[in-house]
Amino acid sequence: MKLKSILILLLVCLNVVGQQQIQHDEPQYTSDGQLKLPDNYREWIYLSSGLGMTYGFVESAANAVVGDRFDNVFVTPRAYRAFLATGTWPDKTMFVMEVRTESSKGSINKGGHFQQGLVGLEAHVKDQSRFPTKWEFFGFSPTARTGKPQGAKSNCQTCHSANGAVDDTFVQFYPTLLPVAKAKGTLKPEIAK
Amino acid sequence: MKLKSILILLLVCLNVVGQQQIQHDEPQYTSDGQLKLPDNYREWIYLSSGLGMTYGFVESAANAVVGDRFDNVFVTPRAYRAFLATGTWPDKTMFVMEVRTESSKGSINKGGHFQQGLVGLEAHVKDQSRFPTKWEFFGFSPTARTGKPQGAKSNCQTCHSANGAVDDTFVQFYPTLLPVAKAKGTLKPEIAK
Repeated sequence: MKLKSILILLLVCLNVVGQQQIQHDEPQYTSDGQLKLPDNYREWIYLSSGLGMTYGFVESAANAVVGDRFDNVFVTPRAYRAFLATGTWPDKTMFVMEVRTESSKGSINKGGHFQQGLVGLEAHVKDQSRFPTKWEFFGFSPTARTGKPQGAKSNCQTCHSANGAVDDTFVQFYPTLLPVAKAKGTLKPEIAK
Repeated sequence: MKLKSILILLLVCLNVVGQQQIQHDEPQYTSDGQLKLPDNYREWIYLSSGLGMTYGFVESAANAVVGDRFDNVFVTPRAYRAFLATGTWPDKTMFVMEVRTESSKGSINKGGHFQQGLVGLEAHVKDQSRFPTKWEFFGFSPTARTGKPQGAKSNCQTCHSANGAVDDTFVQFYPTLLPVAKAKGTLKPEIAK
């Protein structure tokens, strides 16, 4: 009987750990269709950073006004492991891109650029049964706890759908994932050539 | 008896998971004192990136020759969680900094900078009973499986020891950790003022 109690306790523990993993790794929505901020995204898998990247009118115009910004991209650990194994993204994949200001002078640094405060946050979610385009973008203000869907005709959605190297994602800018997609043969034909 | 077998199996599983965590999260050395490459460092916690940062003669000279480089800094998950709780780094903390080339033109990108190939790798390890300076730097070539200790008088060691905001680390350049150190009161007095 004592043994049985320990066994039950162990099973409960394992279940709690499993549930926590799922809660942090899958998109959660409000009743009005907003995405709840996955507040542990800084503990997800880091993919890459850019500085002042301009790949469209929106970014070029923004940079001209506010100066170059850093962006950091994170993806859910479960999706990352699936990508390493298959070169594709499973359903419920979530990306978060944060946008940060930069500075050149600070402490002992005299040149180049290092990251400062958070000024923007965006999520990109694959939820095939929920969105007609399979993927959806959500914009967050830096202090918001929920983000609004950008819609199927948003700049983000149309550009990623047209130009993503794998599915709707910019694997061409993720240096550790691009070789995986090449090896698995999952790059879009127009990118692969 | 069946129950006992299941219990033993569960305990073995839990132990395996625990051991894996320790093996990936703590420094491992070769018999001649080199650090074994922690090959899962891209799954650690990301801290920040810089581009072409110059905080000493070595970096300025290198940038002038090879152009600006991105650096990405990762820390072991256990050390990260300890820092969030205390504002300080526990023994066996490991950092990895990777250095990557950058490009402006590629795919749909027309300006700014995104990350490309790995050209350098450095580890920073806190192992108080092993090193007289408590911390040690190790340099890896991009394809090496082990890294050589840089010694107590290396540029890295003397600069970090003199200028680190918390202990020997550049928390002043990690935007999510600097507020933690401020809140916990663990910044060095000359940085805090």
